[in-house]
Parts: sequence; structure tokens; C-alpha cells
Amino acid sequence: MKAYVYVSLKKSVLDPQGKTIHGALKKMGYRGISDLRQGKYFEINLDASLSREEANAEVERVAREVLTNPVIEEYRFTLED
Amino acid sequence: MKAYVYVSLKKSVLDPQGKTIHGALKKMGYRGISDLRQGKYFEINLDASLSREEANAEVERVAREVLTNPVIEEYRFTLED
Repeated sequence: MKAYVYVSLKKSVLDPQGKTIHGALKKMGYRGISDLRQGKYFEINLDASLSREEANAEVERVAREVLTNPVIEEYRFTLED
Repeated sequence: MKAYVYVSLKKSVLDPQGKTIHGALKKMGYRGISDLRQGKYFEINLDASLSREEANAEVERVAREVLTNPVIEEYRFTLED
């Protein structure tokens, strides 16, 4: 089973890296982009021995306790067979 | 319209950052994770004036030409209304 975890800055937190990329794109002439924010993304391979519920619980735990800084970040994840 | 661009290292490229996270998770006692790779993730807000086709073309162009290093990385993206 595979899990995809997406970690992004909370809406209320400034994203200077995203702002910089956005500014660069504008200068390079790319049109139509009104905002850009950057985040992190994790591709996790899980042992085949885990049930879907166990996998869900384990990924949720890893995402919440390790991959995300709860003060400034939020996460979401999807599971795939 | 919103676009989500996911940039990850090609399968053939080593991912030392992912390996480090994987090793740390193992040491911390998280079970059931057989592999972990890290990537980047971009959330792009597009001007409402763009049609779906224009948005698709623009995001594809930005992802290919700027956000991805074609030597070692690959990308995929989704569009959302």
C-alpha cells in the first residue's frame, strides 16, 4: 500500500519561499498565476502486512507527530492500494 | 481555479533526505513503513479569467520549465475548480 502525505503551511502563515517563486515567475513572463504556495510531499510505501485501517492509523500518526510542525503547518494524506 | 503540482525525484535517483527520515522513523519505533521518498508540492492559484485549457497549458509549462529539474525530477499536477 502507498500513502501520499502533503504538508503545507497554514493559511495564516506567510510563505516567503512561495512569494519568491511567484515573483520570479511573474518576471519570467508567466501569466495567470495569482498566488503560489510551496509545501512538502512524502511518498510512503507501507508493509503489505498492514490492513487498510492499520495503515491509515500509522500514516496519520507519522504525519501528525513527525512530518508536520503543528504550530505552522497542516497536513492531509491519501492511501492507495 | 487551483492547481496542485507535485515534484518528486525520479525513481532512479537516490533520495538521501527520504532515507534519513525513514531511518529516523524506524528508530522512533514507527512500524510498517518500508520506504519513504520526499518531494515538493506547489499550490497555485490561477486567475479566474483563464479557461480550463489555458490553465492546463500554463501550469504544465510552469511545472516543466521552472518547478522541475528534468535531469533528476519528474512532475504531475491536478487542476481543481
